[in-house]
Amino acid sequence: MRMVDVIEKKRNGEELTTEEIRFFVQGYTDGSIPDYQVSSLMMAIYFQDMNDRERADLTMAMVESGDQIDLSGIEGIKVDKHSTGGVGDTTTLSLAAMVAACGVPVAKMSGRGLGHTGGTIDKLESIKGFHVELSNEQFMKQVNDIGTAVIGQSGNLTPADKKLYALRDVTGTVPSIPLIASSIMSKKIAAGADAIVLDVKTGEGAFMKTFEDAKSLAHAMVQIGNSVGRNTMAIISDMSQPLGFAIGNALEVKEAIDTLKGNGPEDLMELCYTLGSQMVVLGGKANSIEEARTQLQTVIANGQALEVFKKFVAAQGGDASVVDDPSLLPQAKYQMELPAKETGYVTKIEADDVGVAAMLLGAGRATKESTIDLSVGLVLHKKVGDAVQKGESLVTIHSNSEDVSEVMEKLYKHIEIVPEKVEAPTLIKEVITK
Amino acid sequence: MRMVDVIEKKRNGEELTTEEIRFFVQGYTDGSIPDYQVSSLMMAIYFQDMNDRERADLTMAMVESGDQIDLSGIEGIKVDKHSTGGVGDTTTLSLAAMVAACGVPVAKMSGRGLGHTGGTIDKLESIKGFHVELSNEQFMKQVNDIGTAVIGQSGNLTPADKKLYALRDVTGTVPSIPLIASSIMSKKIAAGADAIVLDVKTGEGAFMKTFEDAKSLAHAMVQIGNSVGRNTMAIISDMSQPLGFAIGNALEVKEAIDTLKGNGPEDLMELCYTLGSQMVVLGGKANSIEEARTQLQTVIANGQALEVFKKFVAAQGGDASVVDDPSLLPQAKYQMELPAKETGYVTKIEADDVGVAAMLLGAGRATKESTIDLSVGLVLHKKVGDAVQKGESLVTIHSNSEDVSEVMEKLYKHIEIVPEKVEAPTLIKEVITK
Repeated sequence: MRMVDVIEKKRNGEELTTEEIRFFVQGYTDGSIPDYQVSSLMMAIYFQDMNDRERADLTMAMVESGDQIDLSGIEGIKVDKHSTGGVGDTTTLSLAAMVAACGVPVAKMSGRGLGHTGGTIDKLESIKGFHVELSNEQFMKQVNDIGTAVIGQSGNLTPADKKLYALRDVTGTVPSIPLIASSIMSKKIAAGADAIVLDVKTGEGAFMKTFEDAKSLAHAMVQIGNSVGRNTMAIISDMSQPLGFAIGNALEVKEAIDTLKGNGPEDLMELCYTLGSQMVVLGGKANSIEEARTQLQTVIANGQALEVFKKFVAAQGGDASVVDDPSLLPQAKYQMELPAKETGYVTKIEADDVGVAAMLLGAGRATKESTIDLSVGLVLHKKVGDAVQKGESLVTIHSNSEDVSEVMEKLYKHIEIVPEKVEAPTLIKEVITK
Repeated sequence: MRMVDVIEKKRNGEELTTEEIRFFVQGYTDGSIPDYQVSSLMMAIYFQDMNDRERADLTMAMVESGDQIDLSGIEGIKVDKHSTGGVGDTTTLSLAAMVAACGVPVAKMSGRGLGHTGGTIDKLESIKGFHVELSNEQFMKQVNDIGTAVIGQSGNLTPADKKLYALRDVTGTVPSIPLIASSIMSKKIAAGADAIVLDVKTGEGAFMKTFEDAKSLAHAMVQIGNSVGRNTMAIISDMSQPLGFAIGNALEVKEAIDTLKGNGPEDLMELCYTLGSQMVVLGGKANSIEEARTQLQTVIANGQALEVFKKFVAAQGGDASVVDDPSLLPQAKYQMELPAKETGYVTKIEADDVGVAAMLLGAGRATKESTIDLSVGLVLHKKVGDAVQKGESLVTIHSNSEDVSEVMEKLYKHIEIVPEKVEAPTLIKEVITK
């Protein structure tokens, strides 16, 4: 088989066989096929797309390019959740405990990541003593005992995807539905998920700016999952404004605790119930989304979800007393308010730019080498659609530096107030259960 | 400027600026832009095309990537000819002398090339003593004195094109009109042509299999030439069957001499008159194609073209007596006939496969390292449309090996005879003078 023939076939709009897809994924992973042929194929795929079969084959070829985590030591159906990423998304922290409290094991492999705030592990590390250095045996035992555990990424998972993503990033071939969908799904499958729930974000602060693109991606991933034997569901949710109120590591942990107490921001609570319902159904603990939602509401109301979270924190060395006293979390030196300059209604809180403001405070990493400040960040007091009085605080800025003029300027620029009443955006835009 | 932005712009169907085109051509030439970004851009161009301005800019950026031949020491308008390549194409040898005899200087830089037979230089080297090792001064003096000269390729011409072509060859991005057109035109312009005549072949034996593709390419090249100040004309000619009768190096030299004597094959003579007329007009020696054609017929009839050829051969060290006695050219040991197996009309002589048959005899190079046998080849006795009697010879095989069974088998397979009368294909399919 010659790579140039594979490229030409796809360029001409033909379907690649399973063998051809394996050939280029394996060859690229082992270095026998060079970057320049793969980038040209990626561009051909950008234009000619891949059908459902090709997408599933590409996903599985990437899964098979490296190690696969064996979670068979954990009883039950392991359901994983993936979000395509947004600003202030604290869902994972609350969701794992809620779903585990309903009897569905959540064995989470997570990362630190680049972005406006840290990754799930960074956030959890703002709890004193918390660590993710578990052996595989400890990891699985903890999930069996408590219902959930978080471990750092280990092993050589989907090396093909890592190489492909790095190449796509510099060759203009990132925004291709079959390539994005197979990249996400391969990572989840290699990490051992039996079933997968996807939160595809759409709007200004999301990777998929338009609803149509988000919908195509969601359907593509659900199709891939189901065709390779991993039951998959998805939702499409709004990311035109940040999710919840908090943007920052310790601040988001506090918000997650509030959520587990039933006092979280309305949008975050709703997202946790929606995604959690799908997870509980896929985990085989409820027969319908409605039934699952009732279970989740119960474990919030009776404190069982919060109890799971406490045990989880303690099991991984963390100080579980933060759950009762969140003031034990790292605190920034200064807390400054951002007063509204006029009376009216909030019409826009640009997620991306507000995220950048949090990053300016030190909440996120610009490069892999950056250190992050777990205590800093932003807490919104208003969301799109809310009424606001002149002088009322829009945001509390948690900072370790006294000078926050740049951050304030950025926030004023990207939070817009108009005189007329404004509708709040719909949070859950679509639910895809098949 | 970032290459990834240039790629994305073209991917999105936008027009690249002159600066962006120069940026990637220069960057690729100097190695600052890697193969994998360029191959992805080439694939984007394959799908999104380039407009006339972009094509001209790409051509000139490639011209400026290396040396440019200065032919200003030669008086008059230097007209170059380019053929997109076919089987048995002996045109250059006759044409240079014919056009030079009309007063248009032909300063030819030529190569050896890979293919069914050798390049122009290989063919000429079948004349004893002929060489192309001329200094630039000798080269220009010879053109001024005699009207024509052939020199081997020297200098670092269009290195960007060389690198791009090698990359396109292995990344499925060869068949793109803007890329093919700019590649050809950049080489002609860098070699110092003031005006250019193009012979775009179409049919089974040509790079452009369909008339429509050939037409797009011809128009693209004429457009580029005229927009960068090089008057350019083109024709589209048939390459469904080999041109003329001879396929082989010495055999084609003999055929070129026959043509200069007015006794060449009808199609080859016609092609020389058609291309030659355009060259004479572009060289400013005639006001119309018709006037130019009359001049060419005159220099054939009065022997002036043959005289130029003799002087040219002698000036470059060759034995000019071959012109009067072509039997002095290298002769193959065996001459074997290929008798027709049935009576009827020739309906097909597949150019590509007949070319491969000549290569099997040793007439061409399969790799750069192959040595070629100048004496061997094929001489057709029939062309498409001709009547043939069973037992009559279709082809004379000139071979240095007694066993030509494989060659005969190939020829029988690709020369087709049918009982019903067949029309000869039109040789000149289109003439583009603007």
